[in-house]
Amino acid sequence: MIRVGSGFDVHAYDPASPLRLAGLDWPGEPGLSGHSDGDAVCHAVVDALLSAAGLGDIGGLVGVDEPGTEGAASTGFVQLALARLAEQGWEPVNVTVQIVGNRPRFSARREEAQRVMSELVGAPVSLAATTTDHLGFTGRGEGLAAIATALIQRAASPGTPERG
Amino acid sequence: MIRVGSGFDVHAYDPASPLRLAGLDWPGEPGLSGHSDGDAVCHAVVDALLSAAGLGDIGGLVGVDEPGTEGAASTGFVQLALARLAEQGWEPVNVTVQIVGNRPRFSARREEAQRVMSELVGAPVSLAATTTDHLGFTGRGEGLAAIATALIQRAASPGTPERG
Amino acid sequence: MIRVGSGFDVHAYDPASPLRLAGLDWPGEPGLSGHSDGDAVCHAVVDALLSAAGLGDIGGLVGVDEPGTEGAASTGFVQLALARLAEQGWEPVNVTVQIVGNRPRFSARREEAQRVMSELVGAPVSLAATTTDHLGFTGRGEGLAAIATALIQRAASPGTPERG
Repeated sequence: MIRVGSGFDVHAYDPASPLRLAGLDWPGEPGLSGHSDGDAVCHAVVDALLSAAGLGDIGGLVGVDEPGTEGAASTGFVQLALARLAEQGWEPVNVTVQIVGNRPRFSARREEAQRVMSELVGAPVSLAATTTDHLGFTGRGEGLAAIATALIQRAASPGTPERG
Repeated sequence: MIRVGSGFDVHAYDPASPLRLAGLDWPGEPGLSGHSDGDAVCHAVVDALLSAAGLGDIGGLVGVDEPGTEGAASTGFVQLALARLAEQGWEPVNVTVQIVGNRPRFSARREEAQRVMSELVGAPVSLAATTTDHLGFTGRGEGLAAIATALIQRAASPGTPERG
Repeated sequence: MIRVGSGFDVHAYDPASPLRLAGLDWPGEPGLSGHSDGDAVCHAVVDALLSAAGLGDIGGLVGVDEPGTEGAASTGFVQLALARLAEQGWEPVNVTVQIVGNRPRFSARREEAQRVMSELVGAPVSLAATTTDHLGFTGRGEGLAAIATALIQRAASPGTPERG
């Protein structure tokens, strides 16, 4: 029993905000706008996990109008999604995320970001960053996109929540 | 025996047309241009299913110059793709679709659309909608994109068409 | 043991260059800019394979500043990625690629390109091409995008490199 899911998220840059991406702080890099901390990688991972399990999307998981979510750490949304999956007897097999944008300079911290995200998800998370050759909104440096794909499988002991 | 497929489709909005999306009518929402009914969700699902099975793409399935396809219901294209898969002994495991665009207001009818698409495909179909933070052609409200990912597997009785 | 990976690559058109795409030469079609031969399909396939196995991305596989890579055939990068996977006991199950752009006219050579790429990868590769209805940088004919998704599995004899 295996299923595939996908997630896509875009945020405009907001240089006045600190950058949170892939569960890391990026001092000196332009931040992302958004009601939460704007971590597009976490948001795309949440949607990939939820869609694989048929459990809706991040909008249904975390109401954007809920008071506690303003500036909230998006790593918490990933934990919440994993708890929903576990309740239904699903666990992640692996997740891959493509970050599309000019900033941050990602390659130097790729391994670190992968470790943090893999530990968070409890399964291998691959991260890669690419640019769009100066084309489109990502190429003009207006925003960043994250594309996530996830495989999930039936957990060894279905129905037993492992988190949350 | 499991395989993955993907599909991507974009249509410009055409406010003069009625909107068909994910197999539903959306009164009051701007329609999508296109030779058929412009249902980008169905088109992306067709390409995801066909590509997983190595059976070409929607252009080979339905010639756009064929007389009967003008304004045709794209749900019929999904049924046609499923019949081709069944002929080759494949069946869908699950499909996920990301809708990227400002309209329609999707969340209120997400569950309904998922039911219709899952019944059509004969396997779980997850649908999610997101915007691009006012960036790019989707953010400017010029068009809508649909990104589909499908898993398929060998059918229980390979070679026995189940549909069509 | 099965894993999913994804790759995304964009190149601007460079009409002064010859086009290499999906391992084929396309006489009379506008080329793609890039340090190598600019074959966006091969680049996306490399990232999809590497990310599935958790082996980094094309930037780590082939340093763009390495002397021998200028104008290099990107099919060689695919072979290099497959060798890395084989060293770790992984082999491809199948790969699907969506080409998004106005050129080249793809459908007439789709089967030929699929044969070349499938032989190169040693597993079924599905190729499809779509346009974006005149929208965005692909619709304006400024560049081409390739979206790849790959499934990989444990090889029959793990740890035994089959290529390279």
